Amino acid sequence: MEDLKPSIIALLYGPDRRGLVARVASWIFDQGGNIIHADQHRDYEEKTFFQRVEWAAPECELNAHAEGFRRMATEELGMDVRVFRSDYRPRVALMVSKTTHCFHDLILRWQASEFFCDICCVISNHPDLQEPAASYGIPYFCVPVTPKNKSQAEAEQIKILKDLRVELVVLGRYMQILSADFLEAVNVPIINIHHSFLPAFIGKNPYEQAYRHGVKLIGATAHYVTPELDQGPIIQQDVSRIGHRQDVPDLIRRGRDLEKQVLAQAVRWHLENRILVYNNKTVVFD
Amino acid sequence: MEDLKPSIIALLYGPDRRGLVARVASWIFDQGGNIIHADQHRDYEEKTFFQRVEWAAPECELNAHAEGFRRMATEELGMDVRVFRSDYRPRVALMVSKTTHCFHDLILRWQASEFFCDICCVISNHPDLQEPAASYGIPYFCVPVTPKNKSQAEAEQIKILKDLRVELVVLGRYMQILSADFLEAVNVPIINIHHSFLPAFIGKNPYEQAYRHGVKLIGATAHYVTPELDQGPIIQQDVSRIGHRQDVPDLIRRGRDLEKQVLAQAVRWHLENRILVYNNKTVVFD
Amino acid sequence: MEDLKPSIIALLYGPDRRGLVARVASWIFDQGGNIIHADQHRDYEEKTFFQRVEWAAPECELNAHAEGFRRMATEELGMDVRVFRSDYRPRVALMVSKTTHCFHDLILRWQASEFFCDICCVISNHPDLQEPAASYGIPYFCVPVTPKNKSQAEAEQIKILKDLRVELVVLGRYMQILSADFLEAVNVPIINIHHSFLPAFIGKNPYEQAYRHGVKLIGATAHYVTPELDQGPIIQQDVSRIGHRQDVPDLIRRGRDLEKQVLAQAVRWHLENRILVYNNKTVVFD
Amino acid sequence: MEDLKPSIIALLYGPDRRGLVARVASWIFDQGGNIIHADQHRDYEEKTFFQRVEWAAPECELNAHAEGFRRMATEELGMDVRVFRSDYRPRVALMVSKTTHCFHDLILRWQASEFFCDICCVISNHPDLQEPAASYGIPYFCVPVTPKNKSQAEAEQIKILKDLRVELVVLGRYMQILSADFLEAVNVPIINIHHSFLPAFIGKNPYEQAYRHGVKLIGATAHYVTPELDQGPIIQQDVSRIGHRQDVPDLIRRGRDLEKQVLAQAVRWHLENRILVYNNKTVVFD
Repeated sequence: MEDLKPSIIALLYGPDRRGLVARVASWIFDQGGNIIHADQHRDYEEKTFFQRVEWAAPECELNAHAEGFRRMATEELGMDVRVFRSDYRPRVALMVSKTTHCFHDLILRWQASEFFCDICCVISNHPDLQEPAASYGIPYFCVPVTPKNKSQAEAEQIKILKDLRVELVVLGRYMQILSADFLEAVNVPIINIHHSFLPAFIGKNPYEQAYRHGVKLIGATAHYVTPELDQGPIIQQDVSRIGHRQDVPDLIRRGRDLEKQVLAQAVRWHLENRILVYNNKTVVFD
Repeated sequence: MEDLKPSIIALLYGPDRRGLVARVASWIFDQGGNIIHADQHRDYEEKTFFQRVEWAAPECELNAHAEGFRRMATEELGMDVRVFRSDYRPRVALMVSKTTHCFHDLILRWQASEFFCDICCVISNHPDLQEPAASYGIPYFCVPVTPKNKSQAEAEQIKILKDLRVELVVLGRYMQILSADFLEAVNVPIINIHHSFLPAFIGKNPYEQAYRHGVKLIGATAHYVTPELDQGPIIQQDVSRIGHRQDVPDLIRRGRDLEKQVLAQAVRWHLENRILVYNNKTVVFD
Repeated sequence: MEDLKPSIIALLYGPDRRGLVARVASWIFDQGGNIIHADQHRDYEEKTFFQRVEWAAPECELNAHAEGFRRMATEELGMDVRVFRSDYRPRVALMVSKTTHCFHDLILRWQASEFFCDICCVISNHPDLQEPAASYGIPYFCVPVTPKNKSQAEAEQIKILKDLRVELVVLGRYMQILSADFLEAVNVPIINIHHSFLPAFIGKNPYEQAYRHGVKLIGATAHYVTPELDQGPIIQQDVSRIGHRQDVPDLIRRGRDLEKQVLAQAVRWHLENRILVYNNKTVVFD
Repeated sequence: MEDLKPSIIALLYGPDRRGLVARVASWIFDQGGNIIHADQHRDYEEKTFFQRVEWAAPECELNAHAEGFRRMATEELGMDVRVFRSDYRPRVALMVSKTTHCFHDLILRWQASEFFCDICCVISNHPDLQEPAASYGIPYFCVPVTPKNKSQAEAEQIKILKDLRVELVVLGRYMQILSADFLEAVNVPIINIHHSFLPAFIGKNPYEQAYRHGVKLIGATAHYVTPELDQGPIIQQDVSRIGHRQDVPDLIRRGRDLEKQVLAQAVRWHLENRILVYNNKTVVFD
């Protein structure tokens, strides 16, 4: 990221076969590129190959070069490929409710250059964060959601996301379930933070569930959203030790630190194009 | 433990009311004792008071002194009380299957004076650990268990535990479900190690379940055994970070370190009389 | 803190002797109080007794009651005692440089009610954080410090702290060494965050030192400031795993999360009156 | 390791230049190999390239194939190269004193197939572990070391290591300083476990030093031995949280778990040929 010349990053996966690493490396070398990082993984059970490769591109028209790689990897190697320029800033929307900690944390990290993206709007079902969003200079859309108006509200949210050409949605404790129709219409990755160590304590009030259960660690899980509630591919998880002295408000307070860090790490990995999803799991090339 | 004179430890709990801490402290002082540690907890929701208090007893007949405390706390304060002498070594049985790591770990820690107890036997459904048990000088009882002979095998196990006056059973990856009848007949605390972060991945093959689920941390949980499988009060839990590179055998290998440490910690806390159970949860005065 | 009636907290330490716990508990009971928490510690080597006790006071004049306790513990028990009311908000000053992360983190936690205090000013040697401080509504004093004007600048800082009757100073990456004269004149606790696992990497550029040394964990340490640079009593420490892929800017970025959490924890413990200092070490009743 | 056919592993480093990854991959492909894992690293400051590459070799004479790679990487690429066969079991000597925990831990892990090597002897300056070594079936050499006989004792140790063609020495709490002459004569990697978070608390009694200093975490560090005491390249480190309640014996007991795990991880990485040393630091391709 310190480098001024953009590099190219490719994420590929597909049926494993002999020579994939060599072919990718040779293509890049022959085109005048120089590999900066390359990491690969094989799922032997699924006979699937995964790779993340980043290279300093030659002096050339970068988009054509990237497209050339994409075509080779797709047509010759039979891979599913996505290619990114390191100088491209994806457009990100933040969806929040009233809870403030993930909202501030994500925006302050972004201001401190921890995230390479444009945060182009905040969408909330409440007006509470309008003022701080304004002080950060980020457009704020308040779209109240009730059981009655849900599909209409979602239509409004979809329109905002489409109009702003959003490429990633981050749910910073949004607290509302998104419908399958919404997910299909939006059709970009959506990262959620769930305040438990999934798959334990799915759904409502996970800290309350954790307290009742007497667990000795609380957790937080960042995952991509799928139509099944809290069941999408897990990107990152972490835990924090608790004991009998901590009541539910203590768990909520401690959980905030976990949630902020786990969500921020997941968003960073996504923006650095380090995540491949398959079989409802993630490969994270960190 | 370094101290040569034994001390007295009391674990008490019951309905909260004003003055409990003062009354306990005064009784001990008036009887010539000196409080070494005292820790208490209140569950405000349940209006319940919990205390662990340890004191250097006066020069006197210790058992009568301890009994005096028990009577005061029961009759005057309405508490549920257990009183222990620090120089008493509880009699412990270890139940294992073929898996070796918890077996060796528990016995080596015991030899290194990490546990203040007598390990008076190993009971296994397989002969595999007979020889190492012999080299440690610990009696080994091989009681094969099959679906057919289960109740008869349990009767044999119960007889061994009763004959040896066992006061704590530790399941060091025993891998067999103990019947409710067995638990009732044995009627002493039984500590089990489950190789997942409960309540996630109850039952069989938790590492396989964790792998399929794509979690980013694996866990281990030590708990007291109750008739509901893997649902007893949790004593200790810990986790270890994994990634896409780790397959199931890797998780099993890494899990061993977790299991050893979590189980050893739970056993140590139990032997130091630090654990109170209520509402299917534990208060651990550590 | 949820409780509406204030409670009383006492921190005491002094020469150990039989009956201290009982006497403290009895005094509180006799005066109509009810102990909520009590924790004690003995340093057997130093023969010193430490206690933190918190009690619900009776319906009475609280300050007189607190003063009564102070007198009893001082005169009768020979203890060094400090007594606090739980409804008292200490006056806190934040000293910062240009670095933003601890600044925002501390203030946002305060706004989220994680700290029970009044943040009454920010003092900085740079103007950079003036605007965000204003948006938080906190007075900001810019006191530039150069090698030449140092003692004059410190005099100005001392005047601000005195005028505002500040009771705790938090250095949120202030980056300037405070003189022994400053410490003596200010004469209130000062908490600093050092970005290493002390005593490793004292002084300048600890992340650079850590990188050169090839350590596998970076750390952060919150401590009370004393005239010896980075040698004051340690309150809290934590670490984060790194590897060969992380260069110095990565360490700096990762270190921010550590610094924020370690400093926030130390400040919270201080404000909750949980810390006793002796022998250049801390006892933290958490 | 589950695979029955051996694979080839190469560790290389040297001056960075364009096309290194491609050349290595192509050579392997052209010779009929198939890359299983490949990981590389660049130190931009030092302009140095590092790689670990593992490949399934073709049906051929493996040693000649490995030698071919070595020659290409050395002569054509100018790299410093080491090449290993995955089916080769290095010969390991364990040096211990009286302390038992690392001794048992390493041998039990080896018996549980966690280490792919032959432990061909235990060398100790005390007779204490002779009997347990015998029960594990491992030759035991007792070489007493005194200030007077040190160089003679080292000569004896060197002879044993040479006679047994030892390729790795693991110091499992050996507690004696090895002379520079010894290191030169033995001339194989030596892994030591130091019971502190280096560079803090170098030398004697680190737990005592940690206790005096009032740190809130204790650590353990595995490193390669160099003539400078406790200053060799760090392989692995970890820490464990402590508080004012833990005295020195507690730190020692808790430290054992740390030491066992940190040392075992370092040994495993070494045996899996994952470690490159440069600039007194390590690159660990884990």
